[in-house]
Amino acid sequence: MVGSKAGDRKFRIVRTVAEFREQVSAWHRNDLRVGFVPTMGALHVGHMSLIRRAQEMTDRTVASIFVNPRQFGPNEDFAVYPRAEGKDTLLLAEGGVDLLFAPSVEEMYPGGAVTKVSVPGIGDILEGEYRPGFFTGVATVVTKLLLQAQPDVAVFGEKDYQQLLVIRRMVQDLDIPVQIEGAPTEREDDGLACSSRNQYLTENERAVAPQLYQIINAVAERYRKGERPPELTHWGKQALLDAGFGHVDYLEVRDAETLQGLSDPARAARVLVAAWLGKPRLIDNVPV
Amino acid sequence: MVGSKAGDRKFRIVRTVAEFREQVSAWHRNDLRVGFVPTMGALHVGHMSLIRRAQEMTDRTVASIFVNPRQFGPNEDFAVYPRAEGKDTLLLAEGGVDLLFAPSVEEMYPGGAVTKVSVPGIGDILEGEYRPGFFTGVATVVTKLLLQAQPDVAVFGEKDYQQLLVIRRMVQDLDIPVQIEGAPTEREDDGLACSSRNQYLTENERAVAPQLYQIINAVAERYRKGERPPELTHWGKQALLDAGFGHVDYLEVRDAETLQGLSDPARAARVLVAAWLGKPRLIDNVPV
Repeated sequence: MVGSKAGDRKFRIVRTVAEFREQVSAWHRNDLRVGFVPTMGALHVGHMSLIRRAQEMTDRTVASIFVNPRQFGPNEDFAVYPRAEGKDTLLLAEGGVDLLFAPSVEEMYPGGAVTKVSVPGIGDILEGEYRPGFFTGVATVVTKLLLQAQPDVAVFGEKDYQQLLVIRRMVQDLDIPVQIEGAPTEREDDGLACSSRNQYLTENERAVAPQLYQIINAVAERYRKGERPPELTHWGKQALLDAGFGHVDYLEVRDAETLQGLSDPARAARVLVAAWLGKPRLIDNVPV
Repeated sequence: MVGSKAGDRKFRIVRTVAEFREQVSAWHRNDLRVGFVPTMGALHVGHMSLIRRAQEMTDRTVASIFVNPRQFGPNEDFAVYPRAEGKDTLLLAEGGVDLLFAPSVEEMYPGGAVTKVSVPGIGDILEGEYRPGFFTGVATVVTKLLLQAQPDVAVFGEKDYQQLLVIRRMVQDLDIPVQIEGAPTEREDDGLACSSRNQYLTENERAVAPQLYQIINAVAERYRKGERPPELTHWGKQALLDAGFGHVDYLEVRDAETLQGLSDPARAARVLVAAWLGKPRLIDNVPV
């Protein structure tokens, strides 16, 4: 079996922190490096690309499926967030994942759990502004998962670019002993970023959706040619509305590391967008 | 050498996270269990009792000295908090500590460090009410130290009883892989709890100070006999003022686990107090 250093490799599902921790510890005792891909399930080719990245970098790969209630706002879609554990499990097993951790909410947050990890600044802007408490929920659950498993590498997608930066910041600030790896966004043939929420698009909306990617690429191209916010982002927002998007929460060109406004034109930039298309709210981003 | 499983044991000081982590990892690779006692320096017999507890439980003992700016309020005594690294180092070396981690503020909080660990509820009352941000500062730095070192056991004193509970809560909530051990309060012959801040008492104040312990013991005794708040705590506060204390921030009989008001008389209780005596603010607590 490719990449196998010890014993046979069977796909296994565990639902308790104790089993999760014990399996990863056992691999570590055998000098196997462990890669981790935390997910909320409803898996698609985007998730599978993160898993392949983890497999390239390590000897054993763990995925988690946990729809984290603490990162959803009161008016958000926790209750109806897509859940498909049977299909997900099959995908992970076929994809060569070694271990799936799929805990209950009670296992992750036993009675009395109150501690929060927050990342002020980069966690308060853009997504953080439109989804108050979102990044605190993400930072807290990712801290827990990383300390439960203690993987060598954890892989996060650039699709959630701000989340990747928040997690990098948190891991550095709290001295969590793990390497955070970012993986490029997987896209449909027409450019639409793969997302669990795409399944809520109607056929007409699905036809419109790829314009999100086209328009932020156009914004990036215009930025390279010298156009600047706010005129540039105003142009982009109007283009989205003209294409059929319902509301644009934000479309910004920001410093690619800090997500602050760009003062130094020599620094790398990133175009980030969140816009509503029917029921789902879509996000995307591209480098400049 | 007593308790030594591998090699010679020399006292060593490190100042970087990388060296701290590497030394503890090296011990773990040799199957040695590591005990950790985080301190803010200005060591006294109270700290040394925590170190002895760590030594009883593990094979190697690490202390840290770091006066954490993020747990002091703007009007608190960070700038004048006692620092005595020479004397502290001697005490630790003579006490058989294997490693001292004594980082700079810049090493612990490099530019851009923003992430916070907060423990709402138990971290907001009593000390948390009088020292806003205090327990967030404590929880954040203790999380960092625990993840830097990854000790098997970390020892905290019951002198800071609420801090011990906040840390237990945090470690449980974030799944930090460490055993938290509480150690009883060390006292002077006259009952005054050992504290770095005692050195700021004048001779007259030092003569008054032991009454803090006597009065909370009297409150505990009266509670056992059936007296109840608020009359009981009013009595205790008045007794402190009569003894010569300047201001009583709080004197409470609380649930020993949650620090909430006692609804169930069958649950264990704790008397907790914070009161000013001249320049220093003294805290103490006793079980009922």
